[in-house]
Amino acid sequence: MAYLDHAATTPMLDEALEAYVATAREVGNASSLHAAGRHARRRVEESRERVAAVLGARPSEVIFTGGGTESDNLAVKGIFWARRAAAPGRHRVVCSAIEHHAVLDAVDWLVEHEGAEVSWLPVDGGGRLDPERLRAELAGHGERVALVTAMWANNEVGTVQRVTELAAIAAEHAVPVHTDAVQAIGQVPVDFAASGVAALTVTGHKLGGPIGVGALLLGRDVAATPLLHGGGQERDVRSGTLDTPGIVAFAVAVETAVKTQQEYAARVAALRDDLVARVRQAVPDVIFNGAATDRLPGNAHFSFPGCEGDALLLLLDAQGIGCSTGSACSAGVAQPSHVLLAMGADDDRARSSLRFSLGHTSTAADVDALVTALPAAVERARRAAALGSAPR
Amino acid sequence: MAYLDHAATTPMLDEALEAYVATAREVGNASSLHAAGRHARRRVEESRERVAAVLGARPSEVIFTGGGTESDNLAVKGIFWARRAAAPGRHRVVCSAIEHHAVLDAVDWLVEHEGAEVSWLPVDGGGRLDPERLRAELAGHGERVALVTAMWANNEVGTVQRVTELAAIAAEHAVPVHTDAVQAIGQVPVDFAASGVAALTVTGHKLGGPIGVGALLLGRDVAATPLLHGGGQERDVRSGTLDTPGIVAFAVAVETAVKTQQEYAARVAALRDDLVARVRQAVPDVIFNGAATDRLPGNAHFSFPGCEGDALLLLLDAQGIGCSTGSACSAGVAQPSHVLLAMGADDDRARSSLRFSLGHTSTAADVDALVTALPAAVERARRAAALGSAPR
Repeated sequence: MAYLDHAATTPMLDEALEAYVATAREVGNASSLHAAGRHARRRVEESRERVAAVLGARPSEVIFTGGGTESDNLAVKGIFWARRAAAPGRHRVVCSAIEHHAVLDAVDWLVEHEGAEVSWLPVDGGGRLDPERLRAELAGHGERVALVTAMWANNEVGTVQRVTELAAIAAEHAVPVHTDAVQAIGQVPVDFAASGVAALTVTGHKLGGPIGVGALLLGRDVAATPLLHGGGQERDVRSGTLDTPGIVAFAVAVETAVKTQQEYAARVAALRDDLVARVRQAVPDVIFNGAATDRLPGNAHFSFPGCEGDALLLLLDAQGIGCSTGSACSAGVAQPSHVLLAMGADDDRARSSLRFSLGHTSTAADVDALVTALPAAVERARRAAALGSAPR
Repeated sequence: MAYLDHAATTPMLDEALEAYVATAREVGNASSLHAAGRHARRRVEESRERVAAVLGARPSEVIFTGGGTESDNLAVKGIFWARRAAAPGRHRVVCSAIEHHAVLDAVDWLVEHEGAEVSWLPVDGGGRLDPERLRAELAGHGERVALVTAMWANNEVGTVQRVTELAAIAAEHAVPVHTDAVQAIGQVPVDFAASGVAALTVTGHKLGGPIGVGALLLGRDVAATPLLHGGGQERDVRSGTLDTPGIVAFAVAVETAVKTQQEYAARVAALRDDLVARVRQAVPDVIFNGAATDRLPGNAHFSFPGCEGDALLLLLDAQGIGCSTGSACSAGVAQPSHVLLAMGADDDRARSSLRFSLGHTSTAADVDALVTALPAAVERARRAAALGSAPR
């Protein structure tokens, strides 16, 4: 199989899986006081230090969570609640229009359930936020803003934002910034302290670690109301038994991904550039979506005029090519991507798009397989769309 | 080491760890539409069916979560929010006085943050709830109650509640019951449908599965507001990438634990009874806490008059015995157990207690090791307490 869906999940690194197994064979709850518990706790704290070191954070700023969705929800709701509790007038959330649903839907819930106001930051045709829009928003409403949330890199079209610039602007108004860096870690350089953000989401399974383990980097002075109450683990911000094997494996993966980022990005971007060039050759009217530069190295995103993305996905799947429409598809109802719509695409273009995402196991053979299968698949998808029915 | 802290966490079963590794070597996000994603989804759905089958639930009633704390928080807050949204007057929570902190602290947060009222159900000297107290509470406040939460078996003293009776009483008032069955699954028979509860918490690492994976069994008709918003996984009640390897390993462990429960309980209860008899012999003034019958098979809980539990724990630890004070010890500040206080113990007795919990790897040699080390440790702990300082 040519797996071109690394942005959805990427295979676990051997060294991370080995670390998981070795740690799982030990026994002990990291909150227990006996020797086995203290040993488990040491493993957790060593892992915290490793993660902190490569991401530019202090160990105490690493809050282990159950993954990206939990980290995003904790950051958005937790900071909102804490900031509003400190000053009831601060109930506005500034959110980029192209966030992952874990942020978008958390913000929507705050609006519906907690009386929050939201201000959406638009993007340009390449998916880039304009820092001046944030500046204007904060000039107008700064004292009412609980937090700003803007992802480091977009999961669909791969556009990388100028998060440091956004954080600097927010800092002028003492407004904390959360950034979902799930797609960025290991792909582009990310430094928590240097970025100036208050909170940063990481997850394991996008960078060679386990699913179900992630972290929220949370500045020392940033208050967040917990989502999960209980034993008081993780600075009392995130209760729940510490997943020692998962955390150890996560740390191995984060460390490996960050330390190899530069050579990884060069290798994968070259494959990706080859993919883009050959797809353009194979399907001359294809539209390449997203930014030409400031883009994740493994991401290629296209609209195929006259095709339904879902149909094309299944036709490619039948040829052993795994990719994604990149659109939110919940309960079988395909919605056009909010990201592409925010970038100015119309419904048809949004619905005709596919994401190919490369990763640490990708090879030139994967690109070859795609380019070989693509023309016939596109032709068939176009015929099907013209007939008004998708081939299943 | 004699590990007598299985109630804190028990070693992962070989077959569960093997299932984890085999699944982690496959690739694919269970929400992806391509072949790899569909394969991962099949693994998740097969696991859901296995868990449902052995716990008396429908597959659609199994909501996979990140563990017991998350399941408890989702049940308590989620059902509270949903019930109050349907009828604003329903803002009262009826909660047993001996719940795990994941329930207690979630309830406290609802009181402080969401304007909930709480009514605590007391227990007797053995840690048993009196169903008539629930009946009286619901007769007085039934129409204002959002939910009842009462654990299936207590994590400290091992007392098993008559949950089915509680659920039947609540049903007369159409009030949903949540039960934290984290300590019960695999130890005593648990059947979701037969119990009549609306929601039931399970976690992996107490029964031979991975840490960081659990489930909330949630009745088909029971609404719960999500804690984690996002991709809409798990009936839209719990978003987040499905942890396919973790879920598969969890299902293996749940199935094994439930299918072997009867022979496990007989074997472990015999070991436990031997432990209790010999501890009583070795320390004649020891106080055995909890119920004599209706008790988890692996649980033995004692107060050692004249000792500090923490000091005794560390003295036993020095002899290679791992056990627990069973009390909430957060940030190094030992509080006397709320469970023992609710059972009528005074502070001294509560502070002098230790929990020994046996599990699937326990042997007679573990009991021998404890009984050999105990008398000298108790004597030393008593001398230290008499001198007014704990030996560290």
